[in-house]
Amino acid sequence: MPDGVRPAGHPPAAEHSADPPALTVLAVTGIGAIHPGDDLAGVLADAAPLADGDVLVVTQKVVSKAEGRLVPLDHGDTVGRRRLVESQSVRVLRRRGDLLITETRHGFVCANAGVDLSNVDEGFATLLPEDADRSARRIRDVIVARRRIDVAVVVSDTFGRTWRRGVTDVAIGCAGIAAVVDLRGTADALGQPLLATEVCVADEIAGAAELVMGKATGIPAAIVRGVPCQWLRRGSVTDEVVRPPAEDLFR
Amino acid sequence: MPDGVRPAGHPPAAEHSADPPALTVLAVTGIGAIHPGDDLAGVLADAAPLADGDVLVVTQKVVSKAEGRLVPLDHGDTVGRRRLVESQSVRVLRRRGDLLITETRHGFVCANAGVDLSNVDEGFATLLPEDADRSARRIRDVIVARRRIDVAVVVSDTFGRTWRRGVTDVAIGCAGIAAVVDLRGTADALGQPLLATEVCVADEIAGAAELVMGKATGIPAAIVRGVPCQWLRRGSVTDEVVRPPAEDLFR
Repeated sequence: MPDGVRPAGHPPAAEHSADPPALTVLAVTGIGAIHPGDDLAGVLADAAPLADGDVLVVTQKVVSKAEGRLVPLDHGDTVGRRRLVESQSVRVLRRRGDLLITETRHGFVCANAGVDLSNVDEGFATLLPEDADRSARRIRDVIVARRRIDVAVVVSDTFGRTWRRGVTDVAIGCAGIAAVVDLRGTADALGQPLLATEVCVADEIAGAAELVMGKATGIPAAIVRGVPCQWLRRGSVTDEVVRPPAEDLFR
Repeated sequence: MPDGVRPAGHPPAAEHSADPPALTVLAVTGIGAIHPGDDLAGVLADAAPLADGDVLVVTQKVVSKAEGRLVPLDHGDTVGRRRLVESQSVRVLRRRGDLLITETRHGFVCANAGVDLSNVDEGFATLLPEDADRSARRIRDVIVARRRIDVAVVVSDTFGRTWRRGVTDVAIGCAGIAAVVDLRGTADALGQPLLATEVCVADEIAGAAELVMGKATGIPAAIVRGVPCQWLRRGSVTDEVVRPPAEDLFR
């Protein structure tokens, strides 16, 4: 089913919204360990108490594991790790000690090109999915086909920020939801035109999901229920969020 | 009442948490227009259906208005606007057309030093609060005193990101909640020590609140219900989130 098409007989997602606007964020438990080749979409379709109009947020870690994006790496081997990070990068922006800030092939700028050793068996590292928008579409397609409900999917990862301490979860892929919602041209509450309010709702949804997933509890997915139905349309993190170098003031 | 101290006889916030972990995000309606000198804390204490352990997120715009952080500015006067932005900045990092990326006196790096013309009467602009942690503490103190419940307060603003399109809401001040939760040293789900997982939950909470507040609907506050009670302790965006220039790779 293409993005934005709803199964006949299902109400639009707006009916989840209370008045005043409200969201619910629910951790999805019972996923268990995910290994290369596992049917992650099927596991999620069975485990997640999804309803029509929900956004299912899934962490990069389990998506990468299911897609076999694991490579051998001795966790103490800092040289091997650096080479692996460089192999996943098209550009190194900064280095400090073991930390490299690089641009990945996808256009993400992040620490260590998304190469990750946490929650991975010793001797292995995960790489980012080849195309996390495609990962999100595949998961969505399976859930829509199996459950006959229209849902959106966001694949999340944990990124640092240039001038702010602490990491937050952001979207690296999405399907069935706009990554950025453009409110430019809409009048503000005083009736004046708004200037620049392209809101990256996919990142805010990923961050909200992180609040219930934690880091150490083995919960790799969450449901965000109650987003406005107008957001539930074709979307892509690559197309909408990744900032081309030409637009960028810090590369 | 100091941060982290609960009124006797009130249960800890953990009792709001369902199992599995869940959050609710509720828009606060009925605030009305806020003007300089208004008792914003009192208005929020009356309007927001707060419960013990809730986080109340309030936008910078209404905090600045209540605190009288309004200055005259003809919205078409680009030179006057640039001078105002420079007056609010300690360092200009980049310029492109009308856009300046600057470091404010508070240490925030953001567009136009947080000077904002949207949702402000023509002829005026809002400046950031002098100290948004203090703004959050004041609002919290009034609510705790008046309602006899323990709540946290986050003051949010809308910032762009270096390498990602679209804006998201982040925290510029907080009280009664840690801005950054440090999970370093905690074992991950496979029992291995986690390396770097200082999560900026204040930013994720601000972003989650933005999802229900929208940009054009005149809703300046939201409640985030269900955060772990361990997070509800003394916190400060200035101390925990603002990255000192010496730590910073992009300034």
